[in-house]
Amino acid sequence: MYTYSQLKDFCYQVFIKMGCPEDEAQTAAQVLVSADLRGVDSHGVARLSGYVRLWEADRINATPDIKVVHETPGTAVVDGDAGLGLVVAPKAMALAIDKARQVGTGWVSVKNSNHFGIAGYHSMLALQQDMIGISMTNASPLVAPTWSKERMLGTNPIAVAIPAGDEPPFVADFATTTAANGKLEILQRKQENTPGGWVQTKDGHPSNDAFEVKNGGALLPLGSDREHGSHKGYCLGAIVDIFSAVLSGASYGPWAPPFVSFLPVADDMPGEGLGHFFGAMRIDAFQTKENFKANMDKWIRRFRSAQPIDGQESVLIPGDPERMIEKERKDSGFELLKPVEDDLRMLAQKFGLKFE
Amino acid sequence: MYTYSQLKDFCYQVFIKMGCPEDEAQTAAQVLVSADLRGVDSHGVARLSGYVRLWEADRINATPDIKVVHETPGTAVVDGDAGLGLVVAPKAMALAIDKARQVGTGWVSVKNSNHFGIAGYHSMLALQQDMIGISMTNASPLVAPTWSKERMLGTNPIAVAIPAGDEPPFVADFATTTAANGKLEILQRKQENTPGGWVQTKDGHPSNDAFEVKNGGALLPLGSDREHGSHKGYCLGAIVDIFSAVLSGASYGPWAPPFVSFLPVADDMPGEGLGHFFGAMRIDAFQTKENFKANMDKWIRRFRSAQPIDGQESVLIPGDPERMIEKERKDSGFELLKPVEDDLRMLAQKFGLKFE
Repeated sequence: MYTYSQLKDFCYQVFIKMGCPEDEAQTAAQVLVSADLRGVDSHGVARLSGYVRLWEADRINATPDIKVVHETPGTAVVDGDAGLGLVVAPKAMALAIDKARQVGTGWVSVKNSNHFGIAGYHSMLALQQDMIGISMTNASPLVAPTWSKERMLGTNPIAVAIPAGDEPPFVADFATTTAANGKLEILQRKQENTPGGWVQTKDGHPSNDAFEVKNGGALLPLGSDREHGSHKGYCLGAIVDIFSAVLSGASYGPWAPPFVSFLPVADDMPGEGLGHFFGAMRIDAFQTKENFKANMDKWIRRFRSAQPIDGQESVLIPGDPERMIEKERKDSGFELLKPVEDDLRMLAQKFGLKFE
Repeated sequence: MYTYSQLKDFCYQVFIKMGCPEDEAQTAAQVLVSADLRGVDSHGVARLSGYVRLWEADRINATPDIKVVHETPGTAVVDGDAGLGLVVAPKAMALAIDKARQVGTGWVSVKNSNHFGIAGYHSMLALQQDMIGISMTNASPLVAPTWSKERMLGTNPIAVAIPAGDEPPFVADFATTTAANGKLEILQRKQENTPGGWVQTKDGHPSNDAFEVKNGGALLPLGSDREHGSHKGYCLGAIVDIFSAVLSGASYGPWAPPFVSFLPVADDMPGEGLGHFFGAMRIDAFQTKENFKANMDKWIRRFRSAQPIDGQESVLIPGDPERMIEKERKDSGFELLKPVEDDLRMLAQKFGLKFE
């Protein structure tokens, strides 16, 4: 078992060894381990060695000069200077929040960044300011649009965090595919098949093989097939790609730079690095906070008390499952999978750190 | 066969008979018939008699005093005064566009409105201004969240319109359910079953009956079931509901007022009428229009040329199918179904108009 602060501190040490400034190493560690805390294990410490490899491949800049390259009172484009997305994203979100403070809402599109951890973390930064937070990012192309053999989009997640009053906040955070890549990894480890509608072969045929994406196949957009609305999932993934990357000048669609360092970046990239998109909307730019929060509490309670189907669980509010896991893991600590432990030990050895 | 201007003129005459001012009757007719033009027949003239019945039931105000009740430089809440959504929505979208002109983006949440026709129409108003347009609305509760027997949300559509250069614009417009209600109506007329994953019975069991929703059952969120991501469709529908109705002070969730006049509105409505949400984002608030449009063209061409699965059509760009139908119907006119023709003849008789 590991504690939250033990893992966070180890990540901090690794980011320091990479040459990150102290405050940025702190931020990066906090964002990364928040994924483990919320149960999104695929986006937490399991990815630390991936960031290190990208840094070794000169694709991550540990001391980026993150700057605004274009702005209006309510918008900005930020150049992440190839920094860690874990560092670039919270800065861009803070800027969106500042702009919302001035004119009601703030919207920041980011280019030249890298993987930013879990989308939910960044959207939730708005909650403390009584704002709605929105966060999205494009990602390594692994998803085939409806009728396509080719992988054209990432799992392009969307997160929306909405403050409530006495109830905990509403926090939606989801990939725009039927199943996130992390779900495949779990099945791979168990040597189990996927349900239908999650993946297709490299020729576009239906498949249940959890290794299909590794074999050149693709994840499917939310909806799985045309008859069940995969064109809608494709729309969502495309909107995330355009807001994050076309609007900012990052690389988009099939040209989005892959997270894994052993895959080359395209030599005809139409933009710079990965893109993100952040929004903050001040509640009191629309109505009184008190009234809004009272209605959110009412909304949440009504949905939580919806009559469940016999034999099913109660209806959940977006954010419930992650909050339950967070409470449990904060109290009792984490288990890590053997390959993840091995990975962290390898990093400890590489950098002359202790991991135990 | 009917022509576009013939149908639009008939709708205009009906709205005039309801007592709408001339310019608002024009707008309402144009918005309504744009649905038929784009092939979304369920939201066009087939609904005209429904609006009339809501007006007869005193639930639509033909001469509303539409006004801004709260605003900041970048946001507003509009009170639709129980007007036709077809009239309230374009006004609110125009306000979002004005605000974007000032501060980069504009966001308007609307309360006390009614059904606004197709979401796509309103989002597309931004295109002429070189802005991205966003439009959403809550709707009659017909959708069961994951694990719920109860119908808690509407089909709550999202539309996003993004300008391109030489290519036609990207226009996504979709219900956040696996299938829109209009799809069920088509199967009902043909006496055919639905595919699995579209609807459930009133006890929450799987069903293939196209009449299930009429029998107290529910439409399913995009994703169909938990294993295929229905919790993500539920998140999307919930976000639309909260942005449209909780943020504005409209009635939300299961309390959203039903479109059909024979169903009563809840007597404990937490807000006023139906809610919408509109956004406009100026392209040049992020980067030069020229550069953005060149990249959108490149995005569109790359996706259109994605290698299709053998035996499937080419990959489409959101908005392609509607644009093809629009071209065809503008050139050659429309067929209407017999029940829709009968409905319009009934209205002609009621108001002493000609319909032929």
